[in-house]
Amino acid sequence: MTPSLPTDQLINAADEVRIRQNLALVALGKRPADRIVRVGRLLDVYGRNWHADQEIVIAGRRIAWVGPAGAYSGEVGERVDAGNLSAVPGFGEVHKHIESSHLTPEYEAALVLPHGNTWTCEASHEFSNVDGPHNLEFWLTARLAGSPMKIFPLPGSAVPPTAYEWGGGHFGYAEQQSFLQQQLMVAGLDEVMDWPAVWNPENPSYERLWGMIRATFEQRGVVEGHAAGMRAIDDINAFAAAGMASDHEAWTTQEVQDKLRRGLFIELRPHSLAEIVTGLRAAGQTDWSNFALCTDDRSCSDTLKIGATDHNVRLAIQAGLAPEIAIQMVTINPARHMRLTPWVGAIAPGRFADIVLLDDLQTLAIDQVWADGEQVSAGTKFLRPVPSIAWPEWATHTINIEREMTADDFAIPAVPGRDTMHAAVLRPFHWDDDFITMDLPVRDGAVQRDSDRNVTKFAIVDRFSGAGKTSKMFWLGTGPSTADVALACSMGHDKHNIWVVGSSDSAMAQAVNALRQTQGGWALVRNGVVLATVRYEVGGLMTQRPPAELDAEMQELYRQGETIDWMYEPTFSPRWWPGFPERLAFATLTCAPWRWVLVAPSPLAPDGLVNVATGQTHPVVW
Amino acid sequence: MTPSLPTDQLINAADEVRIRQNLALVALGKRPADRIVRVGRLLDVYGRNWHADQEIVIAGRRIAWVGPAGAYSGEVGERVDAGNLSAVPGFGEVHKHIESSHLTPEYEAALVLPHGNTWTCEASHEFSNVDGPHNLEFWLTARLAGSPMKIFPLPGSAVPPTAYEWGGGHFGYAEQQSFLQQQLMVAGLDEVMDWPAVWNPENPSYERLWGMIRATFEQRGVVEGHAAGMRAIDDINAFAAAGMASDHEAWTTQEVQDKLRRGLFIELRPHSLAEIVTGLRAAGQTDWSNFALCTDDRSCSDTLKIGATDHNVRLAIQAGLAPEIAIQMVTINPARHMRLTPWVGAIAPGRFADIVLLDDLQTLAIDQVWADGEQVSAGTKFLRPVPSIAWPEWATHTINIEREMTADDFAIPAVPGRDTMHAAVLRPFHWDDDFITMDLPVRDGAVQRDSDRNVTKFAIVDRFSGAGKTSKMFWLGTGPSTADVALACSMGHDKHNIWVVGSSDSAMAQAVNALRQTQGGWALVRNGVVLATVRYEVGGLMTQRPPAELDAEMQELYRQGETIDWMYEPTFSPRWWPGFPERLAFATLTCAPWRWVLVAPSPLAPDGLVNVATGQTHPVVW
Repeated sequence: MTPSLPTDQLINAADEVRIRQNLALVALGKRPADRIVRVGRLLDVYGRNWHADQEIVIAGRRIAWVGPAGAYSGEVGERVDAGNLSAVPGFGEVHKHIESSHLTPEYEAALVLPHGNTWTCEASHEFSNVDGPHNLEFWLTARLAGSPMKIFPLPGSAVPPTAYEWGGGHFGYAEQQSFLQQQLMVAGLDEVMDWPAVWNPENPSYERLWGMIRATFEQRGVVEGHAAGMRAIDDINAFAAAGMASDHEAWTTQEVQDKLRRGLFIELRPHSLAEIVTGLRAAGQTDWSNFALCTDDRSCSDTLKIGATDHNVRLAIQAGLAPEIAIQMVTINPARHMRLTPWVGAIAPGRFADIVLLDDLQTLAIDQVWADGEQVSAGTKFLRPVPSIAWPEWATHTINIEREMTADDFAIPAVPGRDTMHAAVLRPFHWDDDFITMDLPVRDGAVQRDSDRNVTKFAIVDRFSGAGKTSKMFWLGTGPSTADVALACSMGHDKHNIWVVGSSDSAMAQAVNALRQTQGGWALVRNGVVLATVRYEVGGLMTQRPPAELDAEMQELYRQGETIDWMYEPTFSPRWWPGFPERLAFATLTCAPWRWVLVAPSPLAPDGLVNVATGQTHPVVW
Repeated sequence: MTPSLPTDQLINAADEVRIRQNLALVALGKRPADRIVRVGRLLDVYGRNWHADQEIVIAGRRIAWVGPAGAYSGEVGERVDAGNLSAVPGFGEVHKHIESSHLTPEYEAALVLPHGNTWTCEASHEFSNVDGPHNLEFWLTARLAGSPMKIFPLPGSAVPPTAYEWGGGHFGYAEQQSFLQQQLMVAGLDEVMDWPAVWNPENPSYERLWGMIRATFEQRGVVEGHAAGMRAIDDINAFAAAGMASDHEAWTTQEVQDKLRRGLFIELRPHSLAEIVTGLRAAGQTDWSNFALCTDDRSCSDTLKIGATDHNVRLAIQAGLAPEIAIQMVTINPARHMRLTPWVGAIAPGRFADIVLLDDLQTLAIDQVWADGEQVSAGTKFLRPVPSIAWPEWATHTINIEREMTADDFAIPAVPGRDTMHAAVLRPFHWDDDFITMDLPVRDGAVQRDSDRNVTKFAIVDRFSGAGKTSKMFWLGTGPSTADVALACSMGHDKHNIWVVGSSDSAMAQAVNALRQTQGGWALVRNGVVLATVRYEVGGLMTQRPPAELDAEMQELYRQGETIDWMYEPTFSPRWWPGFPERLAFATLTCAPWRWVLVAPSPLAPDGLVNVATGQTHPVVW
């Protein structure tokens, strides 16, 4: 008689013992198994070898035994025949912000599981920045409610992203120590992004950030890196010397080579994957054991179109990698890097019974996906109910602005008597050492936009204090050139205050007020009318709805966006495109390689304009 | 001005932060480096690529920067030219019992460093079984005294080896939790050997052993396995399901394949390496990322003859592996498996500056070895002083027998009036389910040996309680056939009580008494004369002397041993040879696949004869 066993949803050592004690007896045939799945062949990712006509024996959510069909000696509850399919391990994401799908974790799971993605190392600094104290609880709730996906949250190092930002959460030594001590699902420290705060002892985030690194070493966790735009070999060396274990920001073959040889585990993102894989292959690379594929950010709209982790694997295969190697890059390689091999990354005993069954290897055609020992999808269809979660108010009420915003909040007063004022101007993805300086006209006591020169107004509205503290300045080459239009969004990486860009101050106020109503998402306003909203009612970043519903809202936003003329100039970022400026949500980043940025008014940057690399501040007009 | 930095001998998170903060600044050229070494080429083991004409910048004991010669921008104290040599990372041992070299750690370091071995995961159950409470202190002392070798102690799971053994140490949940919490040098739990105590809930060591496993999972450590003789796929599956991460006991290609695909990291030992590598290559194996080479046990006499880790690498190259792959198997692969990549395994920033400089790659000709940022050897010569350590009494007085042993201690009384008695007989490496039964003659009230039938007497004398509790029985096919001879040794794996085999009871007593005098080692006695002793005065397992001195004693023991006739029969073990029975020290093992064994008298096995797989006991005569 099998004793009652732990529910085996979250990993903890005491349960782990009882689960594995039982698994060993099931493997020996001394206790009955729940299920046995016969497969045509099975990929062992430890040795990169196929084995034909195999059976996988399942007990609870785990694998107890694998071996040749017919060889298992124990009793079995249910027998499943998938003898025409190839079994590979469930795919893992080594670095992904689920927030960027804009779905709550239970809906994310339902979306990506049919694409083979059964486990994700959640790069959690988005939600952490909104509600740090509830961060762990947030990421573990869906699984406890029945979601078959394993989310391994890595607390964000960027909480706050820089010392010039505040509100929502503040993680240092004590917080990281507590996360790692209380929860074995926590694999380490998520991407360390604030490079000036790592190398420079004068940086005001230095102690906080090294405190988190210290706690991570102490608890034997992994310190994930983020070396965006870092190509100088002195910087790369310093980055590795500081203890960073990985990078996912490389764009070129040379950059990957320079980082890999300094001992960084390389996580390739789709947009640069083909070029890098092709380049490395041409350079003779044969050892891919320190590589993984990762998604980082992908909206559910894009996932609906192109897929999830499976898309990344297909790109790698198309770039010339053997499918088996590409699969290792989303299974054993990331599991080993994240020290999660006891649980995920292989179809092997003791691991969760997460299996992708393929029709065809070369095209990675997925017939069905298993997770926790049960079939969860057929084709692209998710077969399980999405858990119904009553997200508490701390998750659903995160736009904390206790007053109506008005046009006055966005006015930039001029010095009395001046016709023009000097203005500090930024562009999206402006990574120069200096801001741009322009002279702008004064009217009615306020400094004005100049749409003839592509200059509009950009603001950050704090959504944490209740006061709606607002910083504003002029930006170049983005925002509406159509009059009396504003676009606002509560996703503003990585602090996730509200950003708003507009051709009139009243439109900007109206757009932000719309987000107060919806509790987050997007709002597009023209001539006093709200043209479109997209609702991210959870954390101001996600929605608790099926992706198709969210996608329909996004498509409507895009359609309304097309009725507006948008300014544009190219900038340093290769991912800054003309048209609807959706990527402004990433143009509010403050990590390296940014220098001058706009943040909500803060003690260290009262006007919000600050050079995050040096700590220098400057008035927005003078 | 560089602030004073931690001594950087043992790893701890607080020091780690200060060391890495400094390294980053050195990498950026903002603080001076101590030393720069120019090498002809450098092997990046992360990507398995060579880089020509490189420099390695060193600060303190660590690497701060690597890159093309001439490109480092900072100030440098000393410049070293090794432009004619190839640099590869310091070699690591993933599973080694330093005790088996019979040298204290500071002498072990001096011996193996010139062979490239700069770091070792110490499989510490030998000393742990002698003095569990001082185990960590013992392994960390040499480094604190100045040894450049990094010893990462893994507390032994086999403390005691079985529930039928006692004394010296007792490790369970609390002890393992404490080891891992107090010391970041502790990488995990050393080889879990007592398989019946893992799978079988009825086994009296079940709770203790799973307590250690639980503590290891809790602290994110690695659970090392030991699956000796385990070839049935049900057992292998159960072993992996129980959470074991590795095995180093495979003998055949098939066994490796069966274990690898169940998710076990494979650690190859020299004696089976060539056959396995050849077999796997013939089977088409191309991915070696889950393989390491390991030494396990090697006496310093053998190291003097054949080498250390370098010998293992040469064997792998000779078996057909590319040298770069063979080197990965003693650098990045074991470091990654043991989660030690921040510190060892690569010539990359942040790691200890441990570098092997090769004259020739294919033959692995070592010109010099660097450790902690300094040259420590030239050719086979160790250039540094061996630290002078005053080992405390807990290390040097471990043969705790408070009385002279006498012949009576070894007599096996007969039932009055019987001419013969049934006797339970064992052979060395007797892995049968049943012991052997023989009828033996009775004389003077005691059961007698029968050298005509190759039967002699074997005893275990407790060296922990002070009382010299002795269990004895008859063994077959080993020990002296020459009259009045005994051989005793305080190394008796893994409990390390004294074992003694002899053709007379008085010789047995005298041999054990000789070990009381020397505080451990070997003693060979004939006709009342001590022919030879080998002194292991530290823990009864090691000596604090140069290896040549110890080797001279061993050679004298062998020479005296050759004057004796030794019984012999082949047994299951392929490593049980005729002649001087040195490997009896391993014939006292009690782990799987052993069944019937002799242990010191214990509450669960009063006569010492017990089946460790079932817990059954039996009288030695009846």
